[in-house]
Amino acid sequence: MAKTPPIEPVSGTVVPRYAGPATFCRLPELRDVPYCDVAILGIPFDSGTSYRPGARFGPQAIRQASRHLRTNFHPQYDTEPFKTIQVADAGDVACNPYNIEEAIAQIEAAADELYQHAGAILSLGGDHTIAVPLLRSINKVVGQVALVHFDAHLDTWDTYFGAPYTHGTPFRRAAEEKLFNDDASMHVGIRGPLYSRDDMAKDAELGFKVVHCDELQAHGVEHVVKRIRDRVGDHPLYLSIDIDVLDPAHAPGTGTPEIAGITSRELVGILRGLQGLNLVAADVVEVAPAYDHAEITSLAAATIAFEMINLIACRKK
Amino acid sequence: MAKTPPIEPVSGTVVPRYAGPATFCRLPELRDVPYCDVAILGIPFDSGTSYRPGARFGPQAIRQASRHLRTNFHPQYDTEPFKTIQVADAGDVACNPYNIEEAIAQIEAAADELYQHAGAILSLGGDHTIAVPLLRSINKVVGQVALVHFDAHLDTWDTYFGAPYTHGTPFRRAAEEKLFNDDASMHVGIRGPLYSRDDMAKDAELGFKVVHCDELQAHGVEHVVKRIRDRVGDHPLYLSIDIDVLDPAHAPGTGTPEIAGITSRELVGILRGLQGLNLVAADVVEVAPAYDHAEITSLAAATIAFEMINLIACRKK
Amino acid sequence: MAKTPPIEPVSGTVVPRYAGPATFCRLPELRDVPYCDVAILGIPFDSGTSYRPGARFGPQAIRQASRHLRTNFHPQYDTEPFKTIQVADAGDVACNPYNIEEAIAQIEAAADELYQHAGAILSLGGDHTIAVPLLRSINKVVGQVALVHFDAHLDTWDTYFGAPYTHGTPFRRAAEEKLFNDDASMHVGIRGPLYSRDDMAKDAELGFKVVHCDELQAHGVEHVVKRIRDRVGDHPLYLSIDIDVLDPAHAPGTGTPEIAGITSRELVGILRGLQGLNLVAADVVEVAPAYDHAEITSLAAATIAFEMINLIACRKK
Amino acid sequence: MAKTPPIEPVSGTVVPRYAGPATFCRLPELRDVPYCDVAILGIPFDSGTSYRPGARFGPQAIRQASRHLRTNFHPQYDTEPFKTIQVADAGDVACNPYNIEEAIAQIEAAADELYQHAGAILSLGGDHTIAVPLLRSINKVVGQVALVHFDAHLDTWDTYFGAPYTHGTPFRRAAEEKLFNDDASMHVGIRGPLYSRDDMAKDAELGFKVVHCDELQAHGVEHVVKRIRDRVGDHPLYLSIDIDVLDPAHAPGTGTPEIAGITSRELVGILRGLQGLNLVAADVVEVAPAYDHAEITSLAAATIAFEMINLIACRKK
Amino acid sequence: MAKTPPIEPVSGTVVPRYAGPATFCRLPELRDVPYCDVAILGIPFDSGTSYRPGARFGPQAIRQASRHLRTNFHPQYDTEPFKTIQVADAGDVACNPYNIEEAIAQIEAAADELYQHAGAILSLGGDHTIAVPLLRSINKVVGQVALVHFDAHLDTWDTYFGAPYTHGTPFRRAAEEKLFNDDASMHVGIRGPLYSRDDMAKDAELGFKVVHCDELQAHGVEHVVKRIRDRVGDHPLYLSIDIDVLDPAHAPGTGTPEIAGITSRELVGILRGLQGLNLVAADVVEVAPAYDHAEITSLAAATIAFEMINLIACRKK
Amino acid sequence: MAKTPPIEPVSGTVVPRYAGPATFCRLPELRDVPYCDVAILGIPFDSGTSYRPGARFGPQAIRQASRHLRTNFHPQYDTEPFKTIQVADAGDVACNPYNIEEAIAQIEAAADELYQHAGAILSLGGDHTIAVPLLRSINKVVGQVALVHFDAHLDTWDTYFGAPYTHGTPFRRAAEEKLFNDDASMHVGIRGPLYSRDDMAKDAELGFKVVHCDELQAHGVEHVVKRIRDRVGDHPLYLSIDIDVLDPAHAPGTGTPEIAGITSRELVGILRGLQGLNLVAADVVEVAPAYDHAEITSLAAATIAFEMINLIACRKK
Repeated sequence: MAKTPPIEPVSGTVVPRYAGPATFCRLPELRDVPYCDVAILGIPFDSGTSYRPGARFGPQAIRQASRHLRTNFHPQYDTEPFKTIQVADAGDVACNPYNIEEAIAQIEAAADELYQHAGAILSLGGDHTIAVPLLRSINKVVGQVALVHFDAHLDTWDTYFGAPYTHGTPFRRAAEEKLFNDDASMHVGIRGPLYSRDDMAKDAELGFKVVHCDELQAHGVEHVVKRIRDRVGDHPLYLSIDIDVLDPAHAPGTGTPEIAGITSRELVGILRGLQGLNLVAADVVEVAPAYDHAEITSLAAATIAFEMINLIACRKK
Repeated sequence: MAKTPPIEPVSGTVVPRYAGPATFCRLPELRDVPYCDVAILGIPFDSGTSYRPGARFGPQAIRQASRHLRTNFHPQYDTEPFKTIQVADAGDVACNPYNIEEAIAQIEAAADELYQHAGAILSLGGDHTIAVPLLRSINKVVGQVALVHFDAHLDTWDTYFGAPYTHGTPFRRAAEEKLFNDDASMHVGIRGPLYSRDDMAKDAELGFKVVHCDELQAHGVEHVVKRIRDRVGDHPLYLSIDIDVLDPAHAPGTGTPEIAGITSRELVGILRGLQGLNLVAADVVEVAPAYDHAEITSLAAATIAFEMINLIACRKK
Repeated sequence: MAKTPPIEPVSGTVVPRYAGPATFCRLPELRDVPYCDVAILGIPFDSGTSYRPGARFGPQAIRQASRHLRTNFHPQYDTEPFKTIQVADAGDVACNPYNIEEAIAQIEAAADELYQHAGAILSLGGDHTIAVPLLRSINKVVGQVALVHFDAHLDTWDTYFGAPYTHGTPFRRAAEEKLFNDDASMHVGIRGPLYSRDDMAKDAELGFKVVHCDELQAHGVEHVVKRIRDRVGDHPLYLSIDIDVLDPAHAPGTGTPEIAGITSRELVGILRGLQGLNLVAADVVEVAPAYDHAEITSLAAATIAFEMINLIACRKK
Repeated sequence: MAKTPPIEPVSGTVVPRYAGPATFCRLPELRDVPYCDVAILGIPFDSGTSYRPGARFGPQAIRQASRHLRTNFHPQYDTEPFKTIQVADAGDVACNPYNIEEAIAQIEAAADELYQHAGAILSLGGDHTIAVPLLRSINKVVGQVALVHFDAHLDTWDTYFGAPYTHGTPFRRAAEEKLFNDDASMHVGIRGPLYSRDDMAKDAELGFKVVHCDELQAHGVEHVVKRIRDRVGDHPLYLSIDIDVLDPAHAPGTGTPEIAGITSRELVGILRGLQGLNLVAADVVEVAPAYDHAEITSLAAATIAFEMINLIACRKK
Repeated sequence: MAKTPPIEPVSGTVVPRYAGPATFCRLPELRDVPYCDVAILGIPFDSGTSYRPGARFGPQAIRQASRHLRTNFHPQYDTEPFKTIQVADAGDVACNPYNIEEAIAQIEAAADELYQHAGAILSLGGDHTIAVPLLRSINKVVGQVALVHFDAHLDTWDTYFGAPYTHGTPFRRAAEEKLFNDDASMHVGIRGPLYSRDDMAKDAELGFKVVHCDELQAHGVEHVVKRIRDRVGDHPLYLSIDIDVLDPAHAPGTGTPEIAGITSRELVGILRGLQGLNLVAADVVEVAPAYDHAEITSLAAATIAFEMINLIACRKK
Repeated sequence: MAKTPPIEPVSGTVVPRYAGPATFCRLPELRDVPYCDVAILGIPFDSGTSYRPGARFGPQAIRQASRHLRTNFHPQYDTEPFKTIQVADAGDVACNPYNIEEAIAQIEAAADELYQHAGAILSLGGDHTIAVPLLRSINKVVGQVALVHFDAHLDTWDTYFGAPYTHGTPFRRAAEEKLFNDDASMHVGIRGPLYSRDDMAKDAELGFKVVHCDELQAHGVEHVVKRIRDRVGDHPLYLSIDIDVLDPAHAPGTGTPEIAGITSRELVGILRGLQGLNLVAADVVEVAPAYDHAEITSLAAATIAFEMINLIACRKK
């Protein structure tokens, strides 16, 4: 029996975009849909932050900025995503701000529960700490994923101030738990100085390849796309996008900005090149609205989230 | 048969205040309550603005700022408002930004419909134009109201650029339509120069008394409270609060700021003095978030809205 | 008989740039020049805006930002524009903010009147609605123009909320009125998702070609220049530049930003490639200063306006 | 023969306030009036600043903020100032930013010249250094003035870094030159710590009385008004208002803010109490727009300037 | 043998205030003084924050704002504090951002160590969590203190999300540990709604008296001063000042602003009334610079810290 | 005898980066090191500014932003700079803000003195005026330098308002004094209109070559690197970097922004290409924090300063 068509967002021709529900893209809430291909999950948690905090306000800011988006048809993907798949907003995880381990457990439990109802989870951070429980949860669903991580930083350090779970360490933890396929994973957008000379070597031992910003500058978007596609292949793909992969000119509203980054045009160019990959889960993290202006950072995050919804919609084709 | 107790907002001890639903005070949506004593209604409309626009983003900003509020118990009113009355968020009216008359009709229709389900409406503007349809609608429910209007400006001019409905004219229109009792109505907080020498006289002809800012300065909060109480008496009361009644130091985020205004402490002091009056409907208008800083204006508006909920909860006592 | 040489702006070596008249580039007012090759016209109107309003403050902000400019000699054009042609500031059109049709009529009348005195009009918006009356007026002077439109968005939708004239619809109206030559017109900088799958097809029916941002990214500035020059040829050219063609990193201060845009270097690169085209009129629109930071958006708009003055000065060569 | 009635500002019912000329209150330029009772003079100079610079942008910001003002009728003065006296905008003095002495000479020369055409000068700063040449100039016209100086600081220090003319020293220089009547002059609003124990004693030797902020707090506006009126008597009065007399909550946009200041309501209350005094010249200084927010500081300065215009208009009664 | 006179801050007549050391008031570092009456201690810790984080950047911002201060002579105290007592900047405590208990232990250890060298500690927060270890440490030095706590909030809740040490709970913990004299302690500036009806009762059980904002509004500064003096008597006094005791107009840069607060003039008025009390330690907390503008919040905090240094200097008299 | 290894900055694993000393990169103060290869020198002076002032606050802002940097290992240079060379913070020069000539003499004297103790000076401006005394001083140490100047503007104008020393004229003065080798010097990043047609010719006469922004756009980073290397050769190199060489999107916080600039990625790319050149001194100037947002400009300046430290560290290899 055919599924009913998806319930679409509130239409901008009926309700002005600055009005109506405060869900992502003014989509229905999870409870309002009979099935759900992609659930948007807010994770307002920033206790893993090492410098400028405030990503706890990221989910609300990204949802508010998503009001800007026109979402009916995306010409680069040739898709009408919200007619193709059912996307719904699952609200926020309630995380303990005073206990990182407990927060991680809460996120994992929330994701586990949500995967009972949703085909994929697109998480809005929050700081990068949240990638660990999200990877744990998706592993229970699809097994080991190919992890493609966009970030200025490796995020594979061991501990900060004795804490194993922080926004600088998630992928070390993920590697230890074998949450990603070390033949199919990579960092993209890495740049800047490092904490020690052997950061890169240690990172490589964890199974990561790196597309440094310099490589993007030298060889361009298509080259990076090819490198990612070659590495990921048919593996189920997890995309983790730290907004600080963008240059501070494009994303000032983040906790640990690093100059000499990539442009939003390059980033969406790369994402659009990933059509057909088997994207199974994703996150956009580290939006700290107190440092944003004119919503440019949260608009970037919202647009990136929407691009990834299109990738999932394309997957169905 | 006893009513079920009200459904309360999401608790700040279970879900951090920066997480959870984006409704006013994280209250339930209207559809989630079996009955509703007070409905919060967003009216994102600012096409009646004469200077700095942007109040269309007021409702979302006030809701976001309302996350700051601790709402369990209000000592000045000795009330637990959300345990006493059922308050729910009714979402936004969809108003045509390009046609003021149509928008007014949409607001009136939405309010009429909402009064079928809700005992009172607390509206979040939007610019002051919206007072006209809201007054029309409450008149159908309770008859003529006592109108107490907090504002730096009279808002009783006739037309601007030929337009009868703008944010500078609502109470002239309301007077023409006899929507308020001209023996029980007044402006509070008026100050600044005027468009013409006979503004005050014309205003008085419409039935308004005026508490000028100077009078507050000279005689204090209790005096103003007494003047309002004496004038309003037992009439059903409509409170219309333009956030620019506050000094720009307290409310920079508004379209037509006027210096030498009242403080937020004076304003909540006056409101707290109105306990026991028969408040039947209210609005808070003219919050323009693009001009706000650190949410201080939207926090003021959210707090004022909450104070008025307490006034309604007290009414029940 | 030889014309007298142009009256130049106030010199920055006599009066510091932050002092002196508040005209565009501190040029003389229209009433102070015996003739006028280019009139700068402010059009503070934003009632056609669909999302973030505030472009009504655009003209003043652009004029203020134009104080930054050094204008004596432009090496890329090899011209001393204000010695070559007489440019003057014609002030603002008074537009009714509450009645779009009336405002359009006021703009058209003001432009018609101004063309009695000025060889060309360079308009500072205001939202994009204003292109319709400006195109009508220039059509009366030179006949049908080649329209080259820089924008993130097509602006050829039909109506919003029943309104035929808004900032999303000017070029549909212009097409219906045959205000531009459909063999010589194009959009440049288009990007992002669309309102419907057939937006592009409908747009093409109106006679537009499109240079998508991706094409610029792939083929570069010179390619885009060539496409424009080939298409425009010798037709009288109208340049309409929505500041949101720039990436939000370069132009945060606008109403409907769209990430992944063009840089200011690309934009001036394209404009400089248009030397020799027969530029007859132009506008720069959608600067919303409340969302700007450090004047970067209004400085971009002011610089772009100055570049176009150089294009007109080159035309004379 | 009767004078022609004054040329009034552009009307807000014909041209929206955000449009039209960028003069103070959209008044006519000096060259456009047959006579001039009060000339508004911008003095964009801040090289005398000791901490946060930027008051060079003060005049433009105050003029822009003056668009907010409704100016037809001022009920507290019972006057229609722009119908009563001819006020015009005389533009800016061109001051050398690199040579304080030369700038002072330029200001004095400009004021001298302007007094040939104008009955009074209301200057918009600029930093407080500019008071010296303005006092020199008015002394040539009316002789010694009573100086009433609103400020957080005494501004009677001797030199800074060897410089005799800075924004901390104008009234020492003025005293040395006997530019004010030392039986009729005073500081109002002084507060905060001092550079040395004998600052107050030295200041008193110059002939100043002081109304400290504490005195205002303890005794109120009417008391301060009486003290000023008693001291000034019938002397020609020069009012010099440093915007930092206001609390930083009311005037963040200034170079040397000092907490615990006076409110804008108190300040306009004091000014309104000075009706009938023989105000002959005035300045409003130290508005540094880069530190302002939502124009609240420049709006305060513009309103204060307008209040003083009313004082002059009252003088005529 | 007489002590050498104190080493004073860098002089503003030799080094401009925006230059020179980044210590509080440009004082010497602790290591540079032979003895120390008051040590300034930065405590950049905000992991106890429940809403807007960022007070970790408070110490640096307060130090930077302290450059504004003129500190030679304070007329209200009739003191030259930095000539009277030796004040020095002891730098920051390194606190673990990921482990509240460890951070508290680090703060306590640092304070203990510092009391070996310094007569008093004036701490710059950081969030209010830091009061617990600071109270523990001062108790070891002088025994139980009288605690006078300026705040919008009681900060005597029990736990948040299971965490005993947060910025909402320090004085409950302090009461349990008997760190303050429950006959001599009070809250000042409390206002706003509460988490539950019995918050006040529970708070009173801990030994606190409350001066509510309403009492200040009704009875004035001198009354509040008297209440504090009567309650504190000769006990060693700890002043803990949450910057949110100020109204958001005066202190927007904080994590949990509450409207209707006290003005900076009232606060310094109260402090100045406390001359002669035996102030032994103090803190100023909850400055979150990301939400500040034009430094007004950090300037308020710096000024308050300086006022308290004067109180200690007076104590010596 | 082997030197002791350098004293490194405070470690980010011991003291969180937002805590600890306010020196550049939390390096030791000059007085704390036994020898010094590179001294960081703040020069808070902006009296040479022609448009937006405020660079006097540059040094503190750059130091604060340098807390962001991870500095242990720089992979592009393959260096651990702070283990390789001793870098220390020498504090600020006290400059007279009211007397440009005196300030220049103070800077020269301070630099001369500092070269007694330090191998190289990396100066943090301040406006570009400061390059003159810095060039004078380094000339005394190493003789004539190759000057490579990154800037949007030539800064070789003659005088402004009669002043020979301003931020627009340093390299004219330097040429007159033969402070740089006119066979080895160049400007990089020049763009925008000019003050006169012969600016470029006059500039060339002084011995400068120019890499215009267009050349970078057309030929790329490696081409520019080659041009610089070819021109500089083995000469001792002085790098002078005006932050406005960056596009305003990357560096809004500056006094004379010019659109169409270079990206931070291009700039660090060029710098990294200069490894092995004999860098002997450098400055980063024109950071005006009042116009910055989210520290992006000061972070760019701090990063650039750190890149240049790496260049010096490489020199030693």
